[in-house]
Amino acid sequence: MTSWIDTGDDSGFCLDVLPYGIFSTEDLDARIGVAIGRYILDLKALAEEGFFTTIDFDSSALMGSTLNDYAALGKQVHKQVRDLIQELLAHATRRGAELRDNQDRRDRVLVKRSQATLHLPMSIGDYTDFFVGPYHAQNPGSTLHRNYLNQPIGYHGRASSVVISETPIRRPKGQFLLDNNPIFGDCQKLDFEVEFAAFIGQGSEHGSSIPVDEAEDHIFGFVIMNDWSARDIQNWESSPLGPFNGKNFATTISPWVVPLEALEPFREHPVSSRPLLPYLQQKREDSVYSVPITVSLNGKQLLSHEMFKCNTKYVVFSFAQMLAHHTAGGCPLRTGDLIATGTLSGPSRKELGCLLEATKNGSEPYEFHTSGPETKNIVRRYLEDGDIIELKASGFGSCSGLIVSSE
Amino acid sequence: MTSWIDTGDDSGFCLDVLPYGIFSTEDLDARIGVAIGRYILDLKALAEEGFFTTIDFDSSALMGSTLNDYAALGKQVHKQVRDLIQELLAHATRRGAELRDNQDRRDRVLVKRSQATLHLPMSIGDYTDFFVGPYHAQNPGSTLHRNYLNQPIGYHGRASSVVISETPIRRPKGQFLLDNNPIFGDCQKLDFEVEFAAFIGQGSEHGSSIPVDEAEDHIFGFVIMNDWSARDIQNWESSPLGPFNGKNFATTISPWVVPLEALEPFREHPVSSRPLLPYLQQKREDSVYSVPITVSLNGKQLLSHEMFKCNTKYVVFSFAQMLAHHTAGGCPLRTGDLIATGTLSGPSRKELGCLLEATKNGSEPYEFHTSGPETKNIVRRYLEDGDIIELKASGFGSCSGLIVSSE
Repeated sequence: MTSWIDTGDDSGFCLDVLPYGIFSTEDLDARIGVAIGRYILDLKALAEEGFFTTIDFDSSALMGSTLNDYAALGKQVHKQVRDLIQELLAHATRRGAELRDNQDRRDRVLVKRSQATLHLPMSIGDYTDFFVGPYHAQNPGSTLHRNYLNQPIGYHGRASSVVISETPIRRPKGQFLLDNNPIFGDCQKLDFEVEFAAFIGQGSEHGSSIPVDEAEDHIFGFVIMNDWSARDIQNWESSPLGPFNGKNFATTISPWVVPLEALEPFREHPVSSRPLLPYLQQKREDSVYSVPITVSLNGKQLLSHEMFKCNTKYVVFSFAQMLAHHTAGGCPLRTGDLIATGTLSGPSRKELGCLLEATKNGSEPYEFHTSGPETKNIVRRYLEDGDIIELKASGFGSCSGLIVSSE
Repeated sequence: MTSWIDTGDDSGFCLDVLPYGIFSTEDLDARIGVAIGRYILDLKALAEEGFFTTIDFDSSALMGSTLNDYAALGKQVHKQVRDLIQELLAHATRRGAELRDNQDRRDRVLVKRSQATLHLPMSIGDYTDFFVGPYHAQNPGSTLHRNYLNQPIGYHGRASSVVISETPIRRPKGQFLLDNNPIFGDCQKLDFEVEFAAFIGQGSEHGSSIPVDEAEDHIFGFVIMNDWSARDIQNWESSPLGPFNGKNFATTISPWVVPLEALEPFREHPVSSRPLLPYLQQKREDSVYSVPITVSLNGKQLLSHEMFKCNTKYVVFSFAQMLAHHTAGGCPLRTGDLIATGTLSGPSRKELGCLLEATKNGSEPYEFHTSGPETKNIVRRYLEDGDIIELKASGFGSCSGLIVSSE
């Protein structure tokens, strides 16, 4: 299905994706939009012009400065809104007179992406980070714990430090061991982690649990994510309660939220199946998604260098299983909660999701040569100030962050 | 300093405390109040009658349904509001005509506590649980990790499952080991944890840190807290990322938030001092508080039985040190964040903060005899359905929860 808007750039913002985001311009306050090619369709403006009156919902949910009210409406409404937008933007639309052939309205409701500032798409109540990537969990420095294949292992992250792509990342200070003595100073082992994350649409009641086969109904959409990690701080603090300051200084997400429906064609089986307790037995076997995510190291003196190509399919549990487990004891989910996979490494050296694995905790440097007129040899054990790590996935946009010095 | 309102009950809601809470009645929507004896002073009503116009702040902050807007104003405003309320309520007030001797106004702004419903006092962004109680950390089943005395160890908790006193606690289901095999079922080792917690007033910027000697300025006030724990679930899930479902089913807090200023007379030194890295060196040595918290086991067939008497002074780090550490890497705090101590056990068997310690993980039952006409022998290894655990501290009210069955 093609659109009358050119979607031939490499963004992947085509009619089958239609990701949601929050944008503003010099003239427009922060509002909900849908990315299409080089444009953003302004859903607030469309709602104000009465485009959604045929759908049974309160269209003020499309007029907020986050996606929360809209996400809370549930998949029936989301499907109808998406169908309507696809109809309006399709090449062969029957409603051409309403937008395609109406230049005045096009000027009012289509904004060039290059003129928009993007904002955090949802107000995040709680952020949970799982650990369902088996290649990361089994990396050379780690022990695979006995519980690992029995349940999706996870921990609570820090919602206040989730930021949108292009927010500069200040190198954290912290406490860590140097020559086996605790010191306080600039993190010396700053790393990224490639992850995939779901935003919760409809929440769940305190004291109730979500059955695994109904859990997908609670997902609004997905983002790609970089969970920045300070390995030296994390290593010294984590016994016995897990990561804290090693993770809570920043987590970056992509600005565009790809709706659940758009990922239907990319369904895939998880890495392995083995007997699970009934509350984790999901009827659907193609319960995960195959979304390639490229990881590039950019920076002032670097051209863009593709380091790794990860994939969201390298997981042992699906999001449905994560949500069923998360709510098994009655923990309530709320609209806007962010649920992430943990690091998505693959089986080969080209598919790693963090430097910890690529350099074996800094012991084997990652090296490459720049191309161009002047060839340089670049060596990284961990990230340096001035480095930019950029994650990219078709339809999600970019998830990037520049490392700035601690002072 | 005494009030013209009788504060001779055992609540501790006297003129020197004046805790804040959120209440509603049949006629009044949820609003901010201050507890005094058997009454609540309705600050919204007072604000509407223009009582705060002499203080330089937007009094709409006193008209919300949470304390957040008010807490964000900072300690200068809080002090002036508190001074004004103390003046109005003092026995020897110079402003007797405005309230004490004005029966019509008394009827409008004083509400009987018995007629009020109390609500969660703040909208909680993130909830962090520390582990600064040394007697709990060194309990017989635990190893004291090498990092423990060098930094306040903590982890991120689940904000969505924090509830107010008297919310029934459903026994969680979950995955745990039975005869060394993972099963899914009702938690069999349900426990409480006695804690003390601070609500953040003014937050901090992402990428900045709070110096330890300025950290108290970011605290609005304190609550007592029960961090319910499912020991069997927690034990099986916690390696390597820490507690998750073993903790995220419920955490109960007291309804009344005691302002920082009210605890000044109860300052105390922490348990031990030892050389700390400079970012944790606090000038003030009486950096913690001595607040006794009683723990009672109540229930249908039980009279109230006092099990333990804990104290908030049994900690190795102050809240100021916890906040300095928490923000050292740039993690932003937000108004309404909840920061807790972890379990507050003391050095003796009468001062334990959880059943895990009292029964050595269920191996040595806790036993007592009921008093009254019919003496019964009561035995607990962990909590049973129908049990009520009630924490009480003078001026904070009660923090209680009834265990209800999982179905």
